[in-house]
Amino acid sequence: MEALEAILTRRSTRKFRAEMPGRELIDRIIEAGRHAPSGGNNQTTHFIVITNPAKLAELAMIVREEFAKMDIYPGMYRSKQNAINAAKKGTLLFHYNAPVLIVVANRTDYSNAMADSACALENMMIAANALDMGSCWVNQLHWLDGNEVIMKYLGALGLEEDETITGGLVLGFADTGAEGGGLPVRTALPRTGNPVTWVE
Amino acid sequence: MEALEAILTRRSTRKFRAEMPGRELIDRIIEAGRHAPSGGNNQTTHFIVITNPAKLAELAMIVREEFAKMDIYPGMYRSKQNAINAAKKGTLLFHYNAPVLIVVANRTDYSNAMADSACALENMMIAANALDMGSCWVNQLHWLDGNEVIMKYLGALGLEEDETITGGLVLGFADTGAEGGGLPVRTALPRTGNPVTWVE
Repeated sequence: MEALEAILTRRSTRKFRAEMPGRELIDRIIEAGRHAPSGGNNQTTHFIVITNPAKLAELAMIVREEFAKMDIYPGMYRSKQNAINAAKKGTLLFHYNAPVLIVVANRTDYSNAMADSACALENMMIAANALDMGSCWVNQLHWLDGNEVIMKYLGALGLEEDETITGGLVLGFADTGAEGGGLPVRTALPRTGNPVTWVE
Repeated sequence: MEALEAILTRRSTRKFRAEMPGRELIDRIIEAGRHAPSGGNNQTTHFIVITNPAKLAELAMIVREEFAKMDIYPGMYRSKQNAINAAKKGTLLFHYNAPVLIVVANRTDYSNAMADSACALENMMIAANALDMGSCWVNQLHWLDGNEVIMKYLGALGLEEDETITGGLVLGFADTGAEGGGLPVRTALPRTGNPVTWVE
């Protein structure tokens, strides 16, 4: 797929088929992420790729439990409120049952940690679209960064002591029903915000 | 250009030809940025596109002056140290004399400000590469976020009171000499960092 088309038609996928993408496909998406720029060519973005169904289910359960313990305060970021409310009702499934979750982390003491990680995540989202796969940035693990239970669980999976969770990507084939045939929805949502000011 | 190729061959351009890209080309790159995902579809990334040569030169001078006032402390981020040292010597030219500078800003009170902005910047970098243009993330204005002189200057150009400077992009045709013909250098640097951990 042409680059501009892949960028403009990328959409967030939140419903996935159970089918596990082949390792070669996942590798290509990770390589796209690894080729994002980094501050001073730092290259400290860490990709923890979870395809083990039992681990994914366990992590989703722990995330639900930890969000259920949280309180909502006035002015709290709306999506975070939604996660807490869903967790308290027992319905939160932060990874949307996607077969692949890529946890993105970076060095705690690095001021460009989020910037570099976000560039890597965007590369992976565009690559996924170009390869007929669906993906979505999931932020629940970032919101739980520092949470003792989560850090311990992810620590056992490879998160380093000096790392902070910057984001996450769910990945798989989109469940777009019989008509969609597993291809992502690609009708771009209009951008009414994201304003542009010209100084000519 | 194919999407994966555009992602894998994107390189930072730091030497530009003086030629101003056509408005249509710049517009396509900004549209790529505007189509980045945003937290809760927030769409608050603000693109301030500066093509006015006098304003660019003035801004570069102010940036140099403000960095020259700063002190280096132990453990300071290396690229920031480099900017301060160059500013004190009078050689800092943060926009590499590119004909186009896109200042990226977002809401100060928005927790995904950097994440959203970085996705937009990455989209623009990939789009620039696909359109045979060179670009580079420049972070000096982000480091000067909150600086009174800079906020006042950018405020006059369109930066809003409730906005924080999250990053910047320089853009133009790469100066790769007679042989390069203005095309960006596209030999990908090997990624020795950016580690991957599999949980299968």
